[in-house]
Amino acid sequence: MTAEQTPVQTDAEGQSIGFVPSYVLGEWWTPAADAKGTDVLDASTDELVARVSSEGLDTAAVVNYARTVGRDNLGALTIHQRALHLKELAKYLTERKAELYAVSNKTGATKVDNFIDIDGGIGVLFTFASKGRRELPNSNVIIDGQPEVLSKDGSFVGEHIYTRIPGITVEINAFNFPVWGMLEKFAPAYIAGVPTIVKPATPTGYVTEAAVRMIVESGILPDGALQLISGSARDLLDYLDYRDLVAFTGSKSTADRLKAHENVAKNGVRFTAEADSLNAAILGPDATADTPEFSAFVRTVVQEIQAKAGQKCTAIRRVIVPAPLVDDVVKAVGERIAEKVKVGDPRTEGTTMGALASIDQLHDVRAAVDALVAGGGEIAVGSNDATDGEGAFMEPVVLRWDDNRAEALHSTEAFGPVTSVLGYDSLGEAVELAALGAGSLVATVCTNDHEVANELVLGISGHHGRVHMLNREDERTTTGHGSPMPHLVHGGPGRAGGGEELGGIRAVKHYMQRTAIQGSPNLLTAVTGVWHLGADQDRVGSEKYGGTPEGVNGAVHPFRKSLETLKLGDAFVSDLRKATLQEITDFANTTGDIFYAHTDPEAAEANPFFPGIVAHGYLLVSWAAGLFVAPGRSAVYLNYGMDSLRFVRPIGVDDSIRVELTAKKITPRESEDYGEVVWDALLLNQDDEVIANYDVLTLAGKREEQALGGE
Amino acid sequence: MTAEQTPVQTDAEGQSIGFVPSYVLGEWWTPAADAKGTDVLDASTDELVARVSSEGLDTAAVVNYARTVGRDNLGALTIHQRALHLKELAKYLTERKAELYAVSNKTGATKVDNFIDIDGGIGVLFTFASKGRRELPNSNVIIDGQPEVLSKDGSFVGEHIYTRIPGITVEINAFNFPVWGMLEKFAPAYIAGVPTIVKPATPTGYVTEAAVRMIVESGILPDGALQLISGSARDLLDYLDYRDLVAFTGSKSTADRLKAHENVAKNGVRFTAEADSLNAAILGPDATADTPEFSAFVRTVVQEIQAKAGQKCTAIRRVIVPAPLVDDVVKAVGERIAEKVKVGDPRTEGTTMGALASIDQLHDVRAAVDALVAGGGEIAVGSNDATDGEGAFMEPVVLRWDDNRAEALHSTEAFGPVTSVLGYDSLGEAVELAALGAGSLVATVCTNDHEVANELVLGISGHHGRVHMLNREDERTTTGHGSPMPHLVHGGPGRAGGGEELGGIRAVKHYMQRTAIQGSPNLLTAVTGVWHLGADQDRVGSEKYGGTPEGVNGAVHPFRKSLETLKLGDAFVSDLRKATLQEITDFANTTGDIFYAHTDPEAAEANPFFPGIVAHGYLLVSWAAGLFVAPGRSAVYLNYGMDSLRFVRPIGVDDSIRVELTAKKITPRESEDYGEVVWDALLLNQDDEVIANYDVLTLAGKREEQALGGE
Repeated sequence: MTAEQTPVQTDAEGQSIGFVPSYVLGEWWTPAADAKGTDVLDASTDELVARVSSEGLDTAAVVNYARTVGRDNLGALTIHQRALHLKELAKYLTERKAELYAVSNKTGATKVDNFIDIDGGIGVLFTFASKGRRELPNSNVIIDGQPEVLSKDGSFVGEHIYTRIPGITVEINAFNFPVWGMLEKFAPAYIAGVPTIVKPATPTGYVTEAAVRMIVESGILPDGALQLISGSARDLLDYLDYRDLVAFTGSKSTADRLKAHENVAKNGVRFTAEADSLNAAILGPDATADTPEFSAFVRTVVQEIQAKAGQKCTAIRRVIVPAPLVDDVVKAVGERIAEKVKVGDPRTEGTTMGALASIDQLHDVRAAVDALVAGGGEIAVGSNDATDGEGAFMEPVVLRWDDNRAEALHSTEAFGPVTSVLGYDSLGEAVELAALGAGSLVATVCTNDHEVANELVLGISGHHGRVHMLNREDERTTTGHGSPMPHLVHGGPGRAGGGEELGGIRAVKHYMQRTAIQGSPNLLTAVTGVWHLGADQDRVGSEKYGGTPEGVNGAVHPFRKSLETLKLGDAFVSDLRKATLQEITDFANTTGDIFYAHTDPEAAEANPFFPGIVAHGYLLVSWAAGLFVAPGRSAVYLNYGMDSLRFVRPIGVDDSIRVELTAKKITPRESEDYGEVVWDALLLNQDDEVIANYDVLTLAGKREEQALGGE
Repeated sequence: MTAEQTPVQTDAEGQSIGFVPSYVLGEWWTPAADAKGTDVLDASTDELVARVSSEGLDTAAVVNYARTVGRDNLGALTIHQRALHLKELAKYLTERKAELYAVSNKTGATKVDNFIDIDGGIGVLFTFASKGRRELPNSNVIIDGQPEVLSKDGSFVGEHIYTRIPGITVEINAFNFPVWGMLEKFAPAYIAGVPTIVKPATPTGYVTEAAVRMIVESGILPDGALQLISGSARDLLDYLDYRDLVAFTGSKSTADRLKAHENVAKNGVRFTAEADSLNAAILGPDATADTPEFSAFVRTVVQEIQAKAGQKCTAIRRVIVPAPLVDDVVKAVGERIAEKVKVGDPRTEGTTMGALASIDQLHDVRAAVDALVAGGGEIAVGSNDATDGEGAFMEPVVLRWDDNRAEALHSTEAFGPVTSVLGYDSLGEAVELAALGAGSLVATVCTNDHEVANELVLGISGHHGRVHMLNREDERTTTGHGSPMPHLVHGGPGRAGGGEELGGIRAVKHYMQRTAIQGSPNLLTAVTGVWHLGADQDRVGSEKYGGTPEGVNGAVHPFRKSLETLKLGDAFVSDLRKATLQEITDFANTTGDIFYAHTDPEAAEANPFFPGIVAHGYLLVSWAAGLFVAPGRSAVYLNYGMDSLRFVRPIGVDDSIRVELTAKKITPRESEDYGEVVWDALLLNQDDEVIANYDVLTLAGKREEQALGGE
């Protein structure tokens, strides 16, 4: 292990020297100078950019470092702490993104492509940093769903929790998004508390290396959280087992090969694949050439040809349009290509579409176009006959098809600026054609007809991970067909790999194990850090209901406790308050809520659910607040909302209510001097029957001295 | 295809005649009389019970029938309609369960075993029938999570939906639970709308056949919803693809073999496995011999040996106890076995433990015990030397281990009444030992110490699908270590197969595809059947805010519309109402909610979130109700709750509020004359800034004439 090796250095002529280093065991590592490696060329100029090799790397040690140092360091942090790291990292990378753009240009990526890859990757960090703190607890246990009471007396309850998987994750990424590809998998794994080993694709791995170098230099992440293997992953999978997760992006054939590895096939390594697919864009029959939808559709098709020179797993490969509109669409797409697409070195002013990532890629794409032509496609726009010279450049190609079910059309992918146009006769046929892709990442449905949208989207949704709807209402604001959003799942069934990434917190849960837990409310409370109905309480308030009156034996209303002293189960129990007809009538008159159940005895009795006049639900909730609020000094700042209010039994005239309010969830914020407290509110009547229950959401100060208000 | 073949008939001597039939293509089918088949014997008496063969069955036709007739019939129903079918079916099977008990006794199952298998299976139907209607919409689109607004102006929004997978499901089941095993997979698939082909294990498939016969005779399910293949599934998997799901229960080796099938490995067939695992029960260090936990633990261990004669994938194979307590535990378990376990023909009075399912099983278990002994185990209770005679009977065997990390201990499973006791020195070691099972379905943690519970449960949760906590509080009410509950997930990582079943609605979603959808609020509304903020409204009410006053041009307050006429987007918009200091003060005094922010100007101003005195949130919500309620006649019966209330901005003295209430979700109940309406409530101030938003939950009549109250 060679410490502090220098990274790739580029001389004045753009020649790289040395190998792209790996970052493992907390150090930079490069293979011996005579190691066997791969040369990587600039996509536009054919100049040598980097050499890549992992020969001699001890991958077992890399895995072990993640398992030990990585897991220990991540396990010592909470979800919110890790989320904040991502925010810091996102800010840090934003400052240095121009450096990454320059490196990335060598891959053929244009300014727009860099925006997708680099800014897009940073955006994923920001989104997960925010969602991790807003949507998850500040602990390492996530509760999934509601408790299930499994015994009549409430002493045996079931629930689900997520905890991090007991291993590590290995990312195996594709060449097209060297930065986004790493970060979109890393962010959720990091929030979950799972260390990552990233293995980028060789042709563009030097861009990933540049990003990892910045991350290391930032000093934000703890040791072992992220390791980089530049070059072949070699025997890495041999050291994984059921505790671990491999997240793969790339070709279906590689995915199949990895899935067949003994540890994946038999030893339970979790494996998720995202493979490029033959994505469709469907034009609705309403979207004729004179509609805003038609032009938005054509723009989208051309955009997806041009972005990353069509080297996107989400690019549109099949343009499915009403048969009578095939000519119009082909013509409009051809015209827009001629007008808008300018192929060239991304560093040259005016270029809108860069080179393919490598000459190998170019050859693959040309061969695929030939196969499409052999399979029945006819080139309607562009040509595949170009004499290729310096750089992996290719002009867009659009094919049209007489046989809309030709096998090649639905199974041969040209991973470049290539798309096919085919016609359909009915909405049912459009659905069938889209499904012939045998599982796709994304489809666009372009229509302004609500029924058409319903039929097409629900018809194809089972075959797709994402459906992008385009009409006049969102044509200017859409984030686009081809862009996976961190908030939404990315992946798809069948050919698309069968996996799922992103989707906000959904992605975090992919790096966690869901476990059902069963036990008494006290034990569920002990494990989850959330108070459960039926668990022990420390009751302050009405002696009649088991409370100690405030001031007696040091009893303090829980609203007066800061997050420093408040404990789960701290509770306030009130006395009863009687509901009189006069008060119900007054409430109806002052609020205007004169619903007949509160004002008209005859109509109320005719209502099958009520005994007669009943108190307003909102009156009961208002009274409950009056019963549980602490007068004067309080650590609680405000009530910011309420969740899951259910009225179980009505309160009629002369019935009474009381309230039990219990500290259920306490979440100090990492970067503020206050935090959230969720209170379980239980309303009962004079017979101790449940009237209503809900969660009261408050903000409260962290420290005793923050309590506000009068004495 | 031979129509209306007779099923297995048993003569007076218990001799069966003919083959166990399959139920395919809407008909009963049996192979030719000379087909090659397997003989199945009564587990206790060795008498011939059934012959099993699928020779000559056209499995391609079976798959095709499910794909066409099955999918069409299920697709014509909604989730609630299908859920109601399950309820009817559960009631029907309950009436006839004694018949099933009699058939099941032949497999060696005792009364208690039958309760687990048959009543347990019916219980799954009841639970899913109830959850399907309470927790899912009455449509075929399930929304997952909250909408994500992806453009500043709200015109482009993302969201997730579940729709049924576009194929069918094949169940491949284990021999130990022929009824429950079928129904626990069938119920969620049916609710999702996915047709099932069930292939039970040969040794007990005649019990499954008897249950399917009843289901067919009930006439409740539509054609193609459920088909049965008795005997080998043969080439069934050859006809499946990425649209389909195979749900397997059984041995790990068979699971591995199926996973390697071309269609699973490469063509995207969804595959979920539940394999038996080396489940642990851990006794906490606090649970010494004199505690209620100790005796509860011993009872649980013996119960899991005895139930199904230990032939449960969830049975306890490894009893992990504090090293000083090993002797106590072995002794207590031995004594309880001697006292409670009576092995014999389940049809004999007094029998508490029946035979293993077959002589083959008995041989397998005996061989496994020998392997455990060879691997370092010492038989402490019972013996493996019995000369086996008629019937597959076996006495319980308990082993103890000096080497608590012996390889055989953590990897060799004796699928019978066999368990091992081993000691640990620290909680950390207990966690490590449990994890040596390399992934398990379930573990019991027995302790009354909250910190011990926390450390053990969170330590092992990543390795387990379920953790059952046992203490003095739930020892009498627990549903037991070995019983998967329909509400809770069943499955586990690694050796346990890596799959997940049950878990309430979670299981339904396994038969559905999650798809991200993006588009304008109008298109999201069109696809999901749920109104989205920003979508079109039909506004009644204040002209100033775009409403048509009630009565003008036939405008009707949406509260007066029954579910027959109410439409998504029907809205009521109110005028502004000003908040005066007097009203805030009066509300504080009448409700008792004298929180300082409403009563003490100085304290309120010191609060970092408020400008000074602010209106109570509950006052705003009460006013909102007063603003939107329809006086007099109304189709709405009651407000049964509220969800996701968030106060976004405060209302100070002399600010004003108004409300926009919009019909968001309309769910007529299948079996009542009313249904749920969820209303989107948006509170705005005089500057059109959002003050609060929430969902109002109401019940309303289905038909116009149900509207109640005065004219």
